[in-house]
Amino acid sequence: MFTFQDVQQKIEREIARIQFVNPPKSLYEPIVYTLSLGGKRIRPALLLMACNLYQDEIESAMQPALGLEVFHNFTLLHDDLMDEADMRRNQPTVHKQWSPNAAILSGDAMLIYAYRLFEGVQDGLLKPVLQLFTTTALEICAGQQFDMEFETRQDVTEAEYIEMIRLKTAVLLACALKMGAMLGKAPEAEQEVLYRLGIHMGLAFQLQDDLLDVYGDTAVFGKQLGGDIVSNKKTFLLINALQRATGREKAVLTDWISRKTFNPEEKIAAVTQVYEQLGLKELTEDKIQVYYKEAMDSLGMLNVPTERLAYLKEVCTRLMYRQS
Amino acid sequence: MFTFQDVQQKIEREIARIQFVNPPKSLYEPIVYTLSLGGKRIRPALLLMACNLYQDEIESAMQPALGLEVFHNFTLLHDDLMDEADMRRNQPTVHKQWSPNAAILSGDAMLIYAYRLFEGVQDGLLKPVLQLFTTTALEICAGQQFDMEFETRQDVTEAEYIEMIRLKTAVLLACALKMGAMLGKAPEAEQEVLYRLGIHMGLAFQLQDDLLDVYGDTAVFGKQLGGDIVSNKKTFLLINALQRATGREKAVLTDWISRKTFNPEEKIAAVTQVYEQLGLKELTEDKIQVYYKEAMDSLGMLNVPTERLAYLKEVCTRLMYRQS
Repeated sequence: MFTFQDVQQKIEREIARIQFVNPPKSLYEPIVYTLSLGGKRIRPALLLMACNLYQDEIESAMQPALGLEVFHNFTLLHDDLMDEADMRRNQPTVHKQWSPNAAILSGDAMLIYAYRLFEGVQDGLLKPVLQLFTTTALEICAGQQFDMEFETRQDVTEAEYIEMIRLKTAVLLACALKMGAMLGKAPEAEQEVLYRLGIHMGLAFQLQDDLLDVYGDTAVFGKQLGGDIVSNKKTFLLINALQRATGREKAVLTDWISRKTFNPEEKIAAVTQVYEQLGLKELTEDKIQVYYKEAMDSLGMLNVPTERLAYLKEVCTRLMYRQS
Repeated sequence: MFTFQDVQQKIEREIARIQFVNPPKSLYEPIVYTLSLGGKRIRPALLLMACNLYQDEIESAMQPALGLEVFHNFTLLHDDLMDEADMRRNQPTVHKQWSPNAAILSGDAMLIYAYRLFEGVQDGLLKPVLQLFTTTALEICAGQQFDMEFETRQDVTEAEYIEMIRLKTAVLLACALKMGAMLGKAPEAEQEVLYRLGIHMGLAFQLQDDLLDVYGDTAVFGKQLGGDIVSNKKTFLLINALQRATGREKAVLTDWISRKTFNPEEKIAAVTQVYEQLGLKELTEDKIQVYYKEAMDSLGMLNVPTERLAYLKEVCTRLMYRQS
């Protein structure tokens, strides 16, 4: 059995080996750059670990695992362009380092290259693997579209928000786990349980991200706290604040949201205070707890010897309660 | 046997039937809009006609044929954004009608949806069909990258230009013909001959496009003449003019190219005069003739009864000598 660290190392080795030999270099440099920025390689790691539940040999699942990682990094590249984000993992984003056109075109090539990485899947599995991937990829586009539309809306409901993060974040984790099970030739029922596990894990993962922006430990989190508050990002906290605040709290919140110029630290402090008054930290933690329990229930339903589940259980817990 | 018009009608019917039922509508509206702008549906038509050389049943090739058409329209959508083109087929481009972000994200969804259309390909053919498509799609990205890089270069050679249009235009026509043969279960040697036919047809097709911008009949061509000259687009004519002009002709050409403000009609007249002095119309026509002959030689090498080749031969000739 392989641990999260084991598969992470394998993935990192394989990513370092990806080479683009065809010209023009200028098309592929932004792709290599994006892939080299790091990250935890969560999606390919989950795929390999899910595969490993059902078989010891996981090398044959490596290329599709990389396909998910390349695809995920493609979405970051295009999302950063659409969101006009200047930095990603403490490095300039592709449209800043090169140009918006480079981000568009190299992103497109990256998406196409992700499909290349599924070509080696064995005959009987190729079609279902591609169907799962394409369905997931379209859902992620839908999630990004909803996310962008939420920016200009003040009436987003919690249910709409959960559906958005299901599409934008959770389905790719679910896809990774299910695809790993498919490649490990697990029965369909097992694949479905892992898919649901991925959805709940993904929802908790994103809510934890929303929490960390406000309550994280800067030293551990690795990025500035309060970025979501400064940019009025519609997080689980802000959406619930907008839905729940009344009277003076409502006035304070809408005032800060509408200000064009402000001292960021003041705004963060003021909005955080509203969150505290409304008990949003606890509300979010409770919601994460619900998803965590659902995920653990799914894990318990798998038809796999308990000792084989230990590493996956550990990584699920770590991702849902991550501090960075 | 089906004529070009027959398959065009079939394709048009199928495109009109494409529906996107999942939300958000805003993600899919630009896709439906782009597909509804029309065009000659050359790529799916070539695929179906190539398939029809080897079997009478072509319905099973329709979905992959649509995949190529959706992909082609995706490239137009993203290229128009990168080239800042306001109009396409006399209608506003997606980034003008909606927004640059809509063009990026709906374009991404369109590329992913193109892959969806290959899912129904039968088991043994799915992998080679996808490999051909993905290789072609990456080549087209490379072609667009070269094209953009040529914009700021004055020393592009004819050979570089031919390689660029091979990648940007010809490989997709070649892919269409080869994929049609694959789906029609033609032997590999036949597939390769059709691929080469597509390359030569595509090169002639693009050179004819370059010619039409200068020497087309406005009433037939459907768009304003001289657009390439006004924008200094590196066409086969301009590249050869830059390589061949000397003395006064060179001075006139570089002067017009460097002017920031000018009367478009004056510029078109002046540059066209240089083209005439350098005999570039004849040079281009001769080159088209060379590719036409290569294409006809390929047609003659196919192991298909002559009477089955008539419709494909007609459409090849028409595309290489098209007036619009």
